[in-house]
Amino acid sequence: MEDSDLREGAGAPAVALDLEHAHVADVVEHLNEQDAGDAAGVLAKLTEERAVELLDHPEFEDAAEIVATLPVDRAASLLAGVSADRATDLLSEMEEPQRSRIIAKLDHETRSAVSHLARYPEGSVGAIMTTEVVSVPANWTVAATLDYIRKVEKSRETIYTICLLHPETGALLQTATLRRLITADPAAPVLAAARHNRPITVTPTLDQEEAARLFTKYDLLAVPVIDERRHLIGIVTVDDIIDAIVEESTEDVQKFGGMEALDEPYMEISFGKMIHKRAGWLAALFIGEMLTATAMQHFEDELQKAIVLTLFIPLIMSSGGNSGSQATSLIIRALALGEVRLRDWWRVALRELPSGLTLGLILGAMGLTRIVAWQLLGLHDYGAHWFLVALTVGCGLVGIVTFGSMTGSMLPFVLKRLNFDPASASAPFVATLVDVTGLVIYFSIASVILAGTLL
Amino acid sequence: MEDSDLREGAGAPAVALDLEHAHVADVVEHLNEQDAGDAAGVLAKLTEERAVELLDHPEFEDAAEIVATLPVDRAASLLAGVSADRATDLLSEMEEPQRSRIIAKLDHETRSAVSHLARYPEGSVGAIMTTEVVSVPANWTVAATLDYIRKVEKSRETIYTICLLHPETGALLQTATLRRLITADPAAPVLAAARHNRPITVTPTLDQEEAARLFTKYDLLAVPVIDERRHLIGIVTVDDIIDAIVEESTEDVQKFGGMEALDEPYMEISFGKMIHKRAGWLAALFIGEMLTATAMQHFEDELQKAIVLTLFIPLIMSSGGNSGSQATSLIIRALALGEVRLRDWWRVALRELPSGLTLGLILGAMGLTRIVAWQLLGLHDYGAHWFLVALTVGCGLVGIVTFGSMTGSMLPFVLKRLNFDPASASAPFVATLVDVTGLVIYFSIASVILAGTLL
Repeated sequence: MEDSDLREGAGAPAVALDLEHAHVADVVEHLNEQDAGDAAGVLAKLTEERAVELLDHPEFEDAAEIVATLPVDRAASLLAGVSADRATDLLSEMEEPQRSRIIAKLDHETRSAVSHLARYPEGSVGAIMTTEVVSVPANWTVAATLDYIRKVEKSRETIYTICLLHPETGALLQTATLRRLITADPAAPVLAAARHNRPITVTPTLDQEEAARLFTKYDLLAVPVIDERRHLIGIVTVDDIIDAIVEESTEDVQKFGGMEALDEPYMEISFGKMIHKRAGWLAALFIGEMLTATAMQHFEDELQKAIVLTLFIPLIMSSGGNSGSQATSLIIRALALGEVRLRDWWRVALRELPSGLTLGLILGAMGLTRIVAWQLLGLHDYGAHWFLVALTVGCGLVGIVTFGSMTGSMLPFVLKRLNFDPASASAPFVATLVDVTGLVIYFSIASVILAGTLL
Repeated sequence: MEDSDLREGAGAPAVALDLEHAHVADVVEHLNEQDAGDAAGVLAKLTEERAVELLDHPEFEDAAEIVATLPVDRAASLLAGVSADRATDLLSEMEEPQRSRIIAKLDHETRSAVSHLARYPEGSVGAIMTTEVVSVPANWTVAATLDYIRKVEKSRETIYTICLLHPETGALLQTATLRRLITADPAAPVLAAARHNRPITVTPTLDQEEAARLFTKYDLLAVPVIDERRHLIGIVTVDDIIDAIVEESTEDVQKFGGMEALDEPYMEISFGKMIHKRAGWLAALFIGEMLTATAMQHFEDELQKAIVLTLFIPLIMSSGGNSGSQATSLIIRALALGEVRLRDWWRVALRELPSGLTLGLILGAMGLTRIVAWQLLGLHDYGAHWFLVALTVGCGLVGIVTFGSMTGSMLPFVLKRLNFDPASASAPFVATLVDVTGLVIYFSIASVILAGTLL
């Protein structure tokens, strides 16, 4: 079967793995299963070229720890070999004084690239870009450009996107693809083989999510990173963008589930760290939900008089929560994909109000039917005023589902406006808000409908 | 500012857009804002080459509708120009008899590619692969291969990955990258310039999510698709994989939010469709949550005697729900990323049991403290047996949070084992299960602790 063939190629058994020739990703997977000391021993036996290939792989977990234990000269020469963005990451994971000692031994080019890249915050394009980009003056010929590419190929992250610079100012004029270059007339100027529209570029401070959107929209393999004077400072490649997209999705799902993003695989994170990441949010939500107890205390008189009302509290709360979480997940995702922008909040409100009402009417009708049916079928006796109770539950559901949809759709906008990540905490915030307000809505409706009878 | 520069390039105002030379994605965005008739008019004025470029873009929404209105000869020649996977998609969106008429006019090559691709189900690699792949016999020289690439470049989706076939059997032997080819000795055999390890390949029936995992693991730009005899049937490129990843994440978030995946942008889906996708799940959950009313009815006697217990029902339910949704989001994501496999369920259970207990103890202590504090500070009177009530709530929280974590982490495994998508419905299922069971746990603990006093 092909599937088993594939697995054989992909996750080969550790014993049979040829460390010099197997896929880098497979060897890294193998090394990740060993402790850092053993992995360092394996690495020492490989050629420098191969060691560099392995260290260059972002999934190699103990890479920084291993490099830090090497003699500084050897460490510096390995770091000079890996891509500049990876070297920056590895150095940032090391402890002092080892880090400074290795930096002091780096060649000038690597050191300046690393100090440049270390400036950009996590989540920005600068943090995943590399400085190893192919650029040539725009007045070169295609043949000269191809010759140059052949010469520098080994040290460049990608050669499929070539940056063409203004011969005097050095500003980025255009990008060309290798695809166009190899089919173009070798004697033609390289600018003629380039795209004819304005090149897609990003700045190093741009959010990685925004950059990912450009990659998906324009089907790009790489995007040049430029500064405010349009000078080239690096390039972002599609593999790093995919990693950013996957990481971002994981964070969103976890935040949406009401916790801090783990930032580590589930099976590998330590017990203490995991409790820490989960307990914080759970406790915060618990404090928020304590307001439900306060609200209930406030209505204790009504509860005493009409104990039948309590029977439907869980049903009503969960319906509000479910409709809120639907609306939140829709809007968080639409915001993340750029389908909806901050200024569209009122358009969304105009969609969610009728949606919430419609959904509320559906659930309200179901709730009312449930109570009437149980009463008429003799399954439960809701008392003399059973129809008024059914009406209270039905109207309560309309109100709470509408409120849930509105709150759930508007809160991501509020969080985004306040410069919080809309994914983070939207769902739990909505749950708390909807639970507390839901109780107030329910008892308010009850006090109107049941006034003079039960209450 | 660069940001505004970027936007100027990306989302230029419709008026100034040069339809022949602007970025395809921008022109498509512009056409999507018009109705199909106007867009067809614009398309008719462009060169055939440009029209093909635009139709080839997957985001062009009315493309199928527009092509279907064209004279069949023109439609067939445009479809022959776009990539085979796109042509297949466009034809699948058309109505009969127009579809059959256009298919009858397609050239032989396009028709056989289309009929081939139409066989694969949505979500499979076959549905996003294209047949326009560069392949050469493995005994060719590098120079001959490059010459061939230059000739066929225009009609191929990617030329950065070249498939090398067994000269006699035609089976896939290796893949080579253009990068290696242009730096290799032109007289050398192309096989020498290829990778030396087993090529990463996929089968057309493989899940797109699995394929995406290979792309991220091995940092690939394209992967050959082969049949059971290792014959090449197509190629999947990274841009289609990114689209699949983004779409998959959207579906996961929406399903996690307790609804069917919209499959359309939030602002574009019709009101009726949106209600349909949301109401189904909300109603199903509502029916599940009706069990909470049944559970409450079952404990009505206890409620009558100890109304104070009702005050903490919302707090207890929401804590169970929150801990369940944390655990679910962690496991869904770990399953989606392949960090955890089906057979690891017991490892997860062994982590979640102590995690749930620890989190439960934290919340239980907080709940107990809250009641004791309110009582002692005189903020509320929980009756003569207030400490026993506090103890009931505290113990109830330990039980419910533990149960929530266990249920939340195990349910995705159960769903996956039953061949359902674990993302779908996990969170809402967990909520319903935890809500109903939570009430039972709470009242059972109450009947033990409060026996002889309140109950």
